[in-house]
Amino acid sequence: MFRTPTFTRPIATAVKSIQSLRMITAQAVVFSDHGEPGDVLSTHTYEINEENLDANSIIIKTLASPINPSDLNQVQGVYPSQPEKTTALGTEKPLAVGGNEGLFQILKVGSNVTKFKEGDWAVPTSVNFGTWRTHAVCDAEQMMKLRNPEQSLADGKKQGLTVNQGATICVNPLTAYLMLTHYVKLTSGKDWFIQNGGNSAVGKFATQISRLLGINSLSVIRDRPNFDEVAENLKKEYGATQVITEEQNNSRDFNAEVKKWVKETGGEIKLGLNCVGGKSSTAVARKLGQNGLMLTYGGMSFQPVILPTSLHIFKNVTSAGFWVTALLKNDLELKQKTMDKIVEWYEEGQLKDAASVETKFDGSDLAKFYKEAISNSKEGKQLITY
Amino acid sequence: MFRTPTFTRPIATAVKSIQSLRMITAQAVVFSDHGEPGDVLSTHTYEINEENLDANSIIIKTLASPINPSDLNQVQGVYPSQPEKTTALGTEKPLAVGGNEGLFQILKVGSNVTKFKEGDWAVPTSVNFGTWRTHAVCDAEQMMKLRNPEQSLADGKKQGLTVNQGATICVNPLTAYLMLTHYVKLTSGKDWFIQNGGNSAVGKFATQISRLLGINSLSVIRDRPNFDEVAENLKKEYGATQVITEEQNNSRDFNAEVKKWVKETGGEIKLGLNCVGGKSSTAVARKLGQNGLMLTYGGMSFQPVILPTSLHIFKNVTSAGFWVTALLKNDLELKQKTMDKIVEWYEEGQLKDAASVETKFDGSDLAKFYKEAISNSKEGKQLITY
Repeated sequence: MFRTPTFTRPIATAVKSIQSLRMITAQAVVFSDHGEPGDVLSTHTYEINEENLDANSIIIKTLASPINPSDLNQVQGVYPSQPEKTTALGTEKPLAVGGNEGLFQILKVGSNVTKFKEGDWAVPTSVNFGTWRTHAVCDAEQMMKLRNPEQSLADGKKQGLTVNQGATICVNPLTAYLMLTHYVKLTSGKDWFIQNGGNSAVGKFATQISRLLGINSLSVIRDRPNFDEVAENLKKEYGATQVITEEQNNSRDFNAEVKKWVKETGGEIKLGLNCVGGKSSTAVARKLGQNGLMLTYGGMSFQPVILPTSLHIFKNVTSAGFWVTALLKNDLELKQKTMDKIVEWYEEGQLKDAASVETKFDGSDLAKFYKEAISNSKEGKQLITY
Repeated sequence: MFRTPTFTRPIATAVKSIQSLRMITAQAVVFSDHGEPGDVLSTHTYEINEENLDANSIIIKTLASPINPSDLNQVQGVYPSQPEKTTALGTEKPLAVGGNEGLFQILKVGSNVTKFKEGDWAVPTSVNFGTWRTHAVCDAEQMMKLRNPEQSLADGKKQGLTVNQGATICVNPLTAYLMLTHYVKLTSGKDWFIQNGGNSAVGKFATQISRLLGINSLSVIRDRPNFDEVAENLKKEYGATQVITEEQNNSRDFNAEVKKWVKETGGEIKLGLNCVGGKSSTAVARKLGQNGLMLTYGGMSFQPVILPTSLHIFKNVTSAGFWVTALLKNDLELKQKTMDKIVEWYEEGQLKDAASVETKFDGSDLAKFYKEAISNSKEGKQLITY
């Protein structure tokens, strides 16, 4: 029986020391304890060996990763979905890498990997990947392919995805598309959905997607001095059917106007999307037709959802929650299908992404970069590019 | 060609005058305009010809009909389901007969009717029949058969239904059974449901039915000086698993106790039944497990249903309405099946009905009788027997 000769060990060590010349120095923004991001985030620097790659693994390089409010809640420890803290990056203390969305490029694939080749674009299959880092080694199954711009053009598409579109595809566009399509059958050319937060990122995606699906939209936005301008922009640039203020939303008199609009299309308001709560959610629910559904995906007012008893009993209105993370966790097929649809619209130039405030990482200290971006979050959604 | 001789008319008239000797003088409690029952209800007296019965019709005699809060709301015009106002009882002005629940006995059946025979018991197939009357003529399809006591005993059952059980079977017992069984699969011996209004009529039916199904119940009842006594009664007489006060329901500390009880059974609180609203509904919803459902069937506090956003998004709790009228309107098969189950439990002596305050009609003025009972409603559910 053949046995591995003992001298293979020193030789292997020798080979390894040669291989270590092919190392990538990576940085990740990590936390081991929960707290305010400014206090608990730090940079962990580690080496990735480009050789000796597991057969099913890939090495990826980050192209961009955004900062979402839920990323911060994870760091604070107040979010129900949490990345696992591990010592996999060679630390003594278990730590987690921040960030959930991101766009990556394949640098190298293991010998068994067929779904990727070098240069492909990819996004994480699931949340909690830890996208605030320069590079990663992972199992190929942890990433889903996204056509890169060259591939889109080679496929005859009008245009390729931008880095921002790729890096922010997994949360807001999927949330909007799935809320509009996964629960209620809205009849094209007739039916309506109503949403508050109509000028938010998800709100604008929902408006555009409803237009692409032929569904009428009624968007409620906060009262503001330049209401007419914002409303006009939502109609012209995003295809909103009607835009009203929260004051109009809350007005029983104004309801007659809404009913008139709906009657003209011969449809019904069958779906409500609520990201505000409080009296805004009540007024959204009141506008639903018989058997209507309101999906709550946010609570910007910090007020609970408030539903008159009679809407439940006599109009059979149902109030449910929507969390894209939970819905897609065990349904990768749905995630792929939904993402394909969004990509297609982006490639056809039919969908506008939400602009991010982009900052290019300069190779210095990664955590410092993210922390600065976090403190600038009020200026808009922050995207770190690499 | 044969033509009807002209002399048939006088003969027919003569026959009719003989038949009119077989007339029933009926009374009904009617309203033509909406308003307070004391103001708008009146007695309409009319004749029912026992002969010349349509082939598909039946003549029925009322055994009992209760006064439900929704009956009064119908009269007031504030209830979404309304009886049609007609001139069918021979009035010039269209009017409606009050009442929705009732127990009837078949007096006579038309020549085509096979589903009933004289002496059978029956309840209305649908709501809005108008049950506050001494007799009625209707299509046989407007009534569903209920085994009368002789039939139950002849079928070898332990006992027959009482008049109160028959007259009040269509709303509360069906509501309780359907809320427990029609939406969520509760695992016998493990799972729980929680309800507020645990000492109400529906609450007691839900408690008993859950016990018969092997489901654990957690009943919330109002704080009261004799809480221990009421709780003990609900456990001993109705089979409640646990009974807590609204104060305990609202206490975050007490939640640990509830979690302990649920853990001991290895199940989950998968269903909540809410007939109160306001903060009681919030506390009920908070006790639901992941993917839990809260059904609202009443709003005794006159407060809306209030749901924390996080319950919707992160626990995927859904809040829906329940209205037995709407559910069963187009599903007579479900109504029959559900009623059969309730009847079976009554016949086996396994289900207690909710006692009514029974008053026997003395043959005088029917509207006066119902109005007096309505004014006594605070003393308990009123049932007029005949």
